Amino acid sequence: FKTDPASVRAYRLYNHRAMRWGLYFAILLNLCLGLFEKPATWPLPIWATISVEGLVHAFYIFRFFHGKHFAKPGFWKDTKHVVVLVTIILTCLDMIIYIFWINLAPYAHPVRWSRALRPLYMINFAEGRQIRRAFRNIRRTLPGILNVLVLFFCSVLLFALMGLKIFQKRKLKNLDGSPYFEDYWESIWALYVLVTTANDPDIMMPAYDNDNWSALFFVVYLLINLYIFMSILLAVIYNNYKKHLKNEVRMAVISKRKKLFQAFEILKVQKDGKEVLTEERWSLLMKAISNKRSGAQIELLLHVLDEDGDNCLLRTEFLNLVDLLNVPLTEVHDRKTLFEKMCPSLYLSRVSEVVKMCVKHRFFRYFFDFMIVVNAVFIGLSLDDAEWFFLVLFAMEILLKMYAYGFRQFFSLFWNWFDFLVIFSALIATIIEALLQEWQDESNTLDILLVLRVLRLIKIIGSIDRFKVIVMTILNIGPSIITYGGVIFVFYYIFAIIGMEVFSGLVAYYPYDTKNQSQLFCGNPALNGSEFARERYCSNNFSNILRSFVLLFELTVVNQWHVLTSGFVLVTSKAARIYFFTFHLICVVIILNIFTAFVLEAFILEYSLSKGKFEHRIEQKIKEMG
Amino acid sequence: FKTDPASVRAYRLYNHRAMRWGLYFAILLNLCLGLFEKPATWPLPIWATISVEGLVHAFYIFRFFHGKHFAKPGFWKDTKHVVVLVTIILTCLDMIIYIFWINLAPYAHPVRWSRALRPLYMINFAEGRQIRRAFRNIRRTLPGILNVLVLFFCSVLLFALMGLKIFQKRKLKNLDGSPYFEDYWESIWALYVLVTTANDPDIMMPAYDNDNWSALFFVVYLLINLYIFMSILLAVIYNNYKKHLKNEVRMAVISKRKKLFQAFEILKVQKDGKEVLTEERWSLLMKAISNKRSGAQIELLLHVLDEDGDNCLLRTEFLNLVDLLNVPLTEVHDRKTLFEKMCPSLYLSRVSEVVKMCVKHRFFRYFFDFMIVVNAVFIGLSLDDAEWFFLVLFAMEILLKMYAYGFRQFFSLFWNWFDFLVIFSALIATIIEALLQEWQDESNTLDILLVLRVLRLIKIIGSIDRFKVIVMTILNIGPSIITYGGVIFVFYYIFAIIGMEVFSGLVAYYPYDTKNQSQLFCGNPALNGSEFARERYCSNNFSNILRSFVLLFELTVVNQWHVLTSGFVLVTSKAARIYFFTFHLICVVIILNIFTAFVLEAFILEYSLSKGKFEHRIEQKIKEMG
Repeated sequence: FKTDPASVRAYRLYNHRAMRWGLYFAILLNLCLGLFEKPATWPLPIWATISVEGLVHAFYIFRFFHGKHFAKPGFWKDTKHVVVLVTIILTCLDMIIYIFWINLAPYAHPVRWSRALRPLYMINFAEGRQIRRAFRNIRRTLPGILNVLVLFFCSVLLFALMGLKIFQKRKLKNLDGSPYFEDYWESIWALYVLVTTANDPDIMMPAYDNDNWSALFFVVYLLINLYIFMSILLAVIYNNYKKHLKNEVRMAVISKRKKLFQAFEILKVQKDGKEVLTEERWSLLMKAISNKRSGAQIELLLHVLDEDGDNCLLRTEFLNLVDLLNVPLTEVHDRKTLFEKMCPSLYLSRVSEVVKMCVKHRFFRYFFDFMIVVNAVFIGLSLDDAEWFFLVLFAMEILLKMYAYGFRQFFSLFWNWFDFLVIFSALIATIIEALLQEWQDESNTLDILLVLRVLRLIKIIGSIDRFKVIVMTILNIGPSIITYGGVIFVFYYIFAIIGMEVFSGLVAYYPYDTKNQSQLFCGNPALNGSEFARERYCSNNFSNILRSFVLLFELTVVNQWHVLTSGFVLVTSKAARIYFFTFHLICVVIILNIFTAFVLEAFILEYSLSKGKFEHRIEQKIKEMG
Repeated sequence: FKTDPASVRAYRLYNHRAMRWGLYFAILLNLCLGLFEKPATWPLPIWATISVEGLVHAFYIFRFFHGKHFAKPGFWKDTKHVVVLVTIILTCLDMIIYIFWINLAPYAHPVRWSRALRPLYMINFAEGRQIRRAFRNIRRTLPGILNVLVLFFCSVLLFALMGLKIFQKRKLKNLDGSPYFEDYWESIWALYVLVTTANDPDIMMPAYDNDNWSALFFVVYLLINLYIFMSILLAVIYNNYKKHLKNEVRMAVISKRKKLFQAFEILKVQKDGKEVLTEERWSLLMKAISNKRSGAQIELLLHVLDEDGDNCLLRTEFLNLVDLLNVPLTEVHDRKTLFEKMCPSLYLSRVSEVVKMCVKHRFFRYFFDFMIVVNAVFIGLSLDDAEWFFLVLFAMEILLKMYAYGFRQFFSLFWNWFDFLVIFSALIATIIEALLQEWQDESNTLDILLVLRVLRLIKIIGSIDRFKVIVMTILNIGPSIITYGGVIFVFYYIFAIIGMEVFSGLVAYYPYDTKNQSQLFCGNPALNGSEFARERYCSNNFSNILRSFVLLFELTVVNQWHVLTSGFVLVTSKAARIYFFTFHLICVVIILNIFTAFVLEAFILEYSLSKGKFEHRIEQKIKEMG
């Protein structure tokens, strides 16, 4: 970065919280437009969505050149900047073309292809660091996978040829009456689907019924291609991923140390012949970074970093700063609860003390944990009469806890918030329902509250020691899992947009008891007699972006994906298979395996690390300081 | 072991090759009885199978007490001996009961339950060391998995309760007309099947059609239980497996070193104040171990081990012995080929030399590799007229190679054997076919030969450098994979026997175009209108052990396992689900994940090790010795 005052001012403005959140909001808004554009979940007129998109892109352009303003000369060498600019240009072009198109030739089915590029902003603006890193990992893992994939496809092609030669001339029929292993392409497709297990054992049955030993062909095929190759693929991905992750971490550490070094060079002061950072400068620095920390906290941090106890930081000590700032610190104050302040005589009386002792006793917790289980059993058995009893009981529990611990301490725990919201909203809803008897048939809200109450069981499971490690591990790797959620979302969005452009309107859901001829077979006569219509998959269509997401999720789960594909093949052509095959290859074979590799590595790391080094050091220092 | 002469003689007899192969044969015979007992693939009378089983068990008993004869006192503390004895006793009891039963009350469906114990001999006789180790690894990995499994099942139960509450009162119907989320048990079953993805998206469709937001329940369920929990399960298994494998290897190394130490203590001689093993004793030792090695080989091995070059082995040098013996050595002799001996003048003539040079040139190989690809394309396009041309061409290739390299060198390579067999049997079959034109419709044998010819493509792929590493890795971990095949086989056999006792005769395959009323719906009216009959799964039954294996394999692949289960539930009761659930839990959730963990670990190890240390040392020594 440039360091002249104007650039620094621009830099500070660029990184100002409002600007950053503005960008997040713009990206989100841009992505959400998919909900309102045709085919829409909630339709809006075209001028509305186009003008919002225009505004958003105006902001992108401003943001982009603002960022470029204070950047060093190497700006254009960074791929992410190039991608952002190209995407902006393409989108603006597409918008202009679209506006002309829709006004001049609206009957020619105008296409907004640039919508598929929207997720690129999410990745390539400098703020999407996490997700960009995930993509980089995937990109670097790919070459290693490629060899295995090529071998795998060779094997599929080979088996398809063998299958064709063995089964073609037996003149067998599939369940739907179509010829069995008709030609080479069909044979490849059938065997590729078989690797995903989606058409097992159906694809085997005609041959198996005809000659028992035919089963051998399919068993050998699955052993080699499903069990061996897919395991090897996971192994290669895991191996590559581990290697790249290690490099990534090493590079990050090196770059961090370099920057800290530079910072120390600027801040250092000569004292007793040594280069140090004094306590005074330290306080200023900490205040400049964030003004949330209290003086006591800043002093504590200095003492933790300062190993030789001279209240000045040496360079080596300063290098530990970043790890330390990552450790959350909370200050605990001895406060009086609200009750105590209001009427101390009552709150501190003998009876009150006994009540508080009871509430704080562990048997109090055991009892209510037990009651949650009993309540769950009652819910399971649909004994709704006991509802009132349990609601009052749990409300009492919450009130007692508030009384004993005080509001502040009570609401400092997540589970207490959860209990409070679930129980009191259920209580209120039940009362309203009891007053308005006619609601009883439609009490969906109450149902959801009942269900949420069941979630309190998680609290109990989480408090059992032997499960704690696993639950904590899952919670710890949670944020990183969300990054992968982002990666999947990018592909989902792109495929959903393409799917809507290609397939929307071809398949639609109508109630299955319809008598209307035009609404039979998902409203498309091409599906007459198809497995897609018979299995009632009409709701799985591209009629809006949310439905597309659900459909893509089903494809990710893999089961029956060939039936879904066959439906869209029937209403278009066999070329539709390319779309579904590509999605399967990218999202299931590659991304999901990388996700598994990531969970493997993260879990093993988390499981082996008990407590971070730094948290430990802070605890020690706090003990030393009394 | 005891070391008195009688015991040593007994030990030598016990470990004699004939005795060991006798045991393998007995175990195999015992397992194969499943093919001939009712319900049989090839039925034999009961007296025949029972008497074979009696003989096999007589041999087991002899072998068992023979082994006990020279064992140390701790014999009964070893679980494997106890298991063998208990199994023998139980089986003999069962056989006696069965003989009485079949003679006194044959109408009461006699049961041979002890047949399910047969695979135990495979594991527990001392010879099944590999498979026992695999089982030990699995047993040790289990406790670590248990916590995750319990958490996972808690989560399924919780979601089942929520699903019940949300969907039960909407009065929806499944595709087959049964009520949707009928009661708690059905809801648990449906959601357990959903984790295996087998009923996705079918289970979601009624709710999704009814209310779009219901999809959220299933998406969240799959995200948590399929993607998170199943990945965590794999991670825990991998983590545990790695730990136990490390321990296992360490224990094996320690025990090996201890035994080598003891051996050296017995063999050592004092020489120049040092304890050594002389060259003379070394030769005797090597001859006692195996008399396949030539004098030259024994001398080479001594030189490799002997680091200081005094022709005597120190203790530290002796400890490397075992690793060295694992390295295969082949002696290469300079021999004349048969042709050269027969007519040297012709073989060594100018023309012959040119031919040999051509054959040995790499373009010769490239050309024929290319022809294999061309041939595969012709086969794929079903252009059968070119068959003669390719057959003659490949036959010529083989003859030329034999001429150039000589028979011995030619047949020393696996692929040459393969080529030879495939091409010449195809040639002979084609000639016979051409002579007897009427066979043409039924030329199944020729088809298989055609298919095998396609397998020669593997040779080409294997010779491309970038794939070589992967192919070699797969081949190297092959033998260990076979051990896991053994583990799976044990469970398959047990489940197949149980399945045949419980379900045989209830479902049968009849041609689907039958007009016979009693043969409709797999011969069982209970399946009328069921999905099982509609999908034509009648061949998937327990009518003999081979069919049972195929059915179990289908269950292992998971897809449609709930449909298979539903068929057997309809012809018996819902309790049948226990059988299928147990199989899925053991074979898919546990064993297959352990298999994946094993492949992961084996692959990463193989990939990182390039060439063994010892092979390298031998190569070096051979070079030194000229």
